Amino acid sequence: MAGSSFGHSFRITTFGESHGGAVGVVIDGVTPGLELSAEDVQKELDRRKPGQSDITTPRKETDEVHLMSGIFEGKTTGTPILLILYNKDQRSQDYDAIKNLFRPGHADFTYLKKYGIRDYRGSGRASGRETAGRVAAGAVAKKLLAHRGVSVTAYTLAAGGIQCDTIDESVIEKNPMRAADMAAAEKMAALVRQMVDQGDSVGGIVECRIRGVKPGIGEPVFDKLDAELARAMLSLGAVKGIEIGSGFNCASMKGSEHNDPMDTTGFKSNNAGGIIGGISTGEEIVFRIAVKPTSSISKEQNTVNIQGNEVKVKTEGRHDPCICPRIVPVVEAMAALVLEDHYKRLEALHG
Amino acid sequence: MAGSSFGHSFRITTFGESHGGAVGVVIDGVTPGLELSAEDVQKELDRRKPGQSDITTPRKETDEVHLMSGIFEGKTTGTPILLILYNKDQRSQDYDAIKNLFRPGHADFTYLKKYGIRDYRGSGRASGRETAGRVAAGAVAKKLLAHRGVSVTAYTLAAGGIQCDTIDESVIEKNPMRAADMAAAEKMAALVRQMVDQGDSVGGIVECRIRGVKPGIGEPVFDKLDAELARAMLSLGAVKGIEIGSGFNCASMKGSEHNDPMDTTGFKSNNAGGIIGGISTGEEIVFRIAVKPTSSISKEQNTVNIQGNEVKVKTEGRHDPCICPRIVPVVEAMAALVLEDHYKRLEALHG
Amino acid sequence: MAGSSFGHSFRITTFGESHGGAVGVVIDGVTPGLELSAEDVQKELDRRKPGQSDITTPRKETDEVHLMSGIFEGKTTGTPILLILYNKDQRSQDYDAIKNLFRPGHADFTYLKKYGIRDYRGSGRASGRETAGRVAAGAVAKKLLAHRGVSVTAYTLAAGGIQCDTIDESVIEKNPMRAADMAAAEKMAALVRQMVDQGDSVGGIVECRIRGVKPGIGEPVFDKLDAELARAMLSLGAVKGIEIGSGFNCASMKGSEHNDPMDTTGFKSNNAGGIIGGISTGEEIVFRIAVKPTSSISKEQNTVNIQGNEVKVKTEGRHDPCICPRIVPVVEAMAALVLEDHYKRLEALHG
Amino acid sequence: MAGSSFGHSFRITTFGESHGGAVGVVIDGVTPGLELSAEDVQKELDRRKPGQSDITTPRKETDEVHLMSGIFEGKTTGTPILLILYNKDQRSQDYDAIKNLFRPGHADFTYLKKYGIRDYRGSGRASGRETAGRVAAGAVAKKLLAHRGVSVTAYTLAAGGIQCDTIDESVIEKNPMRAADMAAAEKMAALVRQMVDQGDSVGGIVECRIRGVKPGIGEPVFDKLDAELARAMLSLGAVKGIEIGSGFNCASMKGSEHNDPMDTTGFKSNNAGGIIGGISTGEEIVFRIAVKPTSSISKEQNTVNIQGNEVKVKTEGRHDPCICPRIVPVVEAMAALVLEDHYKRLEALHG
Repeated sequence: MAGSSFGHSFRITTFGESHGGAVGVVIDGVTPGLELSAEDVQKELDRRKPGQSDITTPRKETDEVHLMSGIFEGKTTGTPILLILYNKDQRSQDYDAIKNLFRPGHADFTYLKKYGIRDYRGSGRASGRETAGRVAAGAVAKKLLAHRGVSVTAYTLAAGGIQCDTIDESVIEKNPMRAADMAAAEKMAALVRQMVDQGDSVGGIVECRIRGVKPGIGEPVFDKLDAELARAMLSLGAVKGIEIGSGFNCASMKGSEHNDPMDTTGFKSNNAGGIIGGISTGEEIVFRIAVKPTSSISKEQNTVNIQGNEVKVKTEGRHDPCICPRIVPVVEAMAALVLEDHYKRLEALHG
Repeated sequence: MAGSSFGHSFRITTFGESHGGAVGVVIDGVTPGLELSAEDVQKELDRRKPGQSDITTPRKETDEVHLMSGIFEGKTTGTPILLILYNKDQRSQDYDAIKNLFRPGHADFTYLKKYGIRDYRGSGRASGRETAGRVAAGAVAKKLLAHRGVSVTAYTLAAGGIQCDTIDESVIEKNPMRAADMAAAEKMAALVRQMVDQGDSVGGIVECRIRGVKPGIGEPVFDKLDAELARAMLSLGAVKGIEIGSGFNCASMKGSEHNDPMDTTGFKSNNAGGIIGGISTGEEIVFRIAVKPTSSISKEQNTVNIQGNEVKVKTEGRHDPCICPRIVPVVEAMAALVLEDHYKRLEALHG
Repeated sequence: MAGSSFGHSFRITTFGESHGGAVGVVIDGVTPGLELSAEDVQKELDRRKPGQSDITTPRKETDEVHLMSGIFEGKTTGTPILLILYNKDQRSQDYDAIKNLFRPGHADFTYLKKYGIRDYRGSGRASGRETAGRVAAGAVAKKLLAHRGVSVTAYTLAAGGIQCDTIDESVIEKNPMRAADMAAAEKMAALVRQMVDQGDSVGGIVECRIRGVKPGIGEPVFDKLDAELARAMLSLGAVKGIEIGSGFNCASMKGSEHNDPMDTTGFKSNNAGGIIGGISTGEEIVFRIAVKPTSSISKEQNTVNIQGNEVKVKTEGRHDPCICPRIVPVVEAMAALVLEDHYKRLEALHG
Repeated sequence: MAGSSFGHSFRITTFGESHGGAVGVVIDGVTPGLELSAEDVQKELDRRKPGQSDITTPRKETDEVHLMSGIFEGKTTGTPILLILYNKDQRSQDYDAIKNLFRPGHADFTYLKKYGIRDYRGSGRASGRETAGRVAAGAVAKKLLAHRGVSVTAYTLAAGGIQCDTIDESVIEKNPMRAADMAAAEKMAALVRQMVDQGDSVGGIVECRIRGVKPGIGEPVFDKLDAELARAMLSLGAVKGIEIGSGFNCASMKGSEHNDPMDTTGFKSNNAGGIIGGISTGEEIVFRIAVKPTSSISKEQNTVNIQGNEVKVKTEGRHDPCICPRIVPVVEAMAALVLEDHYKRLEALHG
């Protein structure tokens, strides 16, 4: 298992690197009979694509998706769906400056150590462009979940130390930070523009809420719903941590505070974050992830080259000063993939 | 997939609940020719078993392991190893008080919703006793890793808000909290004893350090080494979060601070926590997990019963006021399982 | 993946060798709420155990099964079921004569080449005793299938060149050959007794019929229902071939003969054997397997020892002169495991 | 698991149907550093493509392969390789005659029962065109195996009852039947042309020989090498049986005849077919498969339509009167995929 597949009953396999011929995904196990168009997928990809605002990278990636199989007369047939996005810009010459050195914070060193060979063009397989396949597959999962009454919403909770004071989900798509608080969003954007000027970048926190999940979803033991969400989120290169419900705050809480009591109307609090024993409680599922500052910065940094000599490196142009706004749709996609898979797994158990 | 298996090339399947006939594990894919005795496994299980000190539950679990297959003349044969621990105490009558209600913080409600049936004796499959199988399998993984020069060490970093000031790994097994700082350990223990008196419990943070991992271990994309560690840790019922390296601190850092520069001697910092792009850098792998306060407390709590009526519940006796000391060997076991599996997966890739 | 697991949504993992502590199986993904007792499993194991008649090996294997987990108040809970059979006779001294040589037809040579170590006691993991775990798990699958209206029936169709003239399933359990024709059974038994006298053995053909399977079961492409049945059957050490429906006869047939026409009452013939394109048609599923003559014979044979010298070997006592009667319940078990798994997989697809 | 993936450590996922946008495969787990060009893959695809001779279908499929990922500067990088073949001819109108009925021998009925929806254009996913992805992936496996000294050769052994008298592998690619005997090939071809005239088709037998496999390859128990080959072959829609080594002949043999004796030069016979206990012996691996006569014939047949009425059907033009010559490269591809995967799995076990 080389790790490019995800899920059991709803299973995706991604392929592609930033400067190969294409990136994309094969989805196996899609419920037959679902109406599905390229537009359904494209609208999610458009939330991920570069160049959406003045604070994302202006790179001109071609994020146009093509549905190549598994669809007949506008409906899914239950056979594998190939979603493919062609890479238009495959120039290698741009990368001469970095081909023989290890950019700090990038996977250059680790890929070379693992494979003995490295596609240095635009980070190769380690490029954020790999997530386009995830978002495309997530769009299908989201559509299936919508039929179940399940919705997934993520947003920037904090960036560079600036935090949302209130959560207003209606503003998420109305500000370039995809923050849930308009005032905070403006401060964040100002900070991010400052980073651009300084040739630097900044990290943040993304929060995700999943609503409408019935109780009983998730496999106990190793495939706990929160364990699978954690794997899904940490499988994003920029993510350094995840917490569910009370999260790290639980470490200084007492059991009598942390346990969520119940009454006839249901749970009276949600420290569990909607999951107990790996299985959904029926409450909102809520988790937060730590997003590191983008590794690609134009400030000069110290590193070594493949010959082992110390060199200086600046990553020129074209990078996101804060990845949060563009990781939001990826987080939603990964969460949707986990949920749809586990709904199907429950059917198999009882089926 | 019902979720009781973990790993690909080194694969375990656990079974058992707290009051069935036995708990344990089958390990498939063990390197043949490894010397392995019951003692190798027992010594890890003894670190997990109850009744180790005055601040763990005094329950008399029989944690004696039996090696039932896959061993010949003291060596592994490469065929599946069954490690089994029989449950001695299978009395059901103790559980009459809780059989018809949902204990706050426990998986009683979610199991019933998922399965339509619930083994209420001692939390059934959701019991911490399930982790005995993990620790047993982890002991085998640890022994294989030792031959690779890899060691895994976890300890209590904080409990109830009291934090280790220094990290001295030599004291971990010398204090009942398994803390890495003797002075902090004493304060933690005092707090925990106070919790016992109050019929309450407290959470904490466990940190884990993995040393000796060569660069190049881990599959990129979905099976990133950190993603797999995250899944492994969140698959423990008490864990509410994980962070790798810089963790949640990265959210307010700049790229120029966070990127780990390199010189001819290697990496100059380790914000990455030993993993970049899902692959080991060769630096120490370090992560922290948030451990919730034990759900079983003797303080009276509000809940409902299966008939939907509001009731009060107290969980009588026999529970850990802080689970950190006993989760430490489980964390090490799960980390070892992930690492051994990924070492083998690298061999397959190049093989 | 070391190959001791089988199935996806209904998944088993077997363990054990003939002279270790135990053999058995863990089943994960069992539908919760099924009434299940040790007797349900034991009755299938009794059909597989040695010493059933004068033409099976008189070995005294202890085939008593113990249900160790996953059951509560007589019902399955949906968590893993451990079914274990302890090995009573673990004497190694009986095997001194063979420990250093490669018995013809046995896996002695190949195991040593693969693992570099070999448990020579009673063929170790390659022993037919390993199939006890499969039969135990198959008993659970059969019970679930019975609720679906599906039955699985296998019988000896031929042995040593003697073939059933008619198929009368009511006589299968009434003759020691488990043949479907009483007259043929007597001739087969006579031949088999002759083999015992000659210190030799004989092969045969086992046929299996699965009834009540609704149309639509089976995944196309790699997990076709017939492909999975083929893997299941060839995973039995003694099986050298399988054919479905028309089988090898199809090689000299014309399309106009082979295609099964339909009318308003359904299919008019069943050359397909109940499966087209890997998916069940709703007709009876029928396949035949070729069973090689038992490798263990007391006639003297030529071989080499581990030092590379030519030696003679006789396998003393205690072996089946024809394995067909005892493989019949194993064939049924494996077929049942495949079917139950695929029923569940269909639920996941549409779920 | 919806069944479009195959293999563990060398894992493929196919996609596509005959009249969607494309067919192809993603390969994950390819050894990095292998020189790989489109030509390497194309030459195998050209052996599978239609229109090779007067006795294959004259359909103009576009079998031109495109390498879209996982390659850098002519070498594999260890990341997923997408191999894609675009479908040029996507006209649906040709299929009006069959869209509402079930063609005998085809998967029309079973797909509709399984999915509730059916892509009737050219058999959809059940089309033989799906095997193009397998052949493409198999070409990569073959190249890796060549570096191990392993070769895979298949040929038509019999067609319509005409059998090769001798096996001369040098003539396989020199006759349109891909038979291993020139004289037999001519008789077969004459018979096949007769079938074309009659609007009928004929079945056959394909034999495969794998040479150079070292002893020790294959996982015992469920993933036996022969079990995996059996699954691989029966996963081809036209295959109704498989036999390894002695195959069905073993059913009337004695143990003293069937067991392969050894002397200092190795095995003295090969009834085992190169595999004992699921593990390679180092001898040639040899198996035969039964290939049914092509279902698509132009003779009039009886069937029913989706409304349940009896109708007549003729499949017009464009079909192979005997599929053997074109299935030969597919058999080789599937065998190569199994072998390469198991070589890698052995590395993981010892790694």
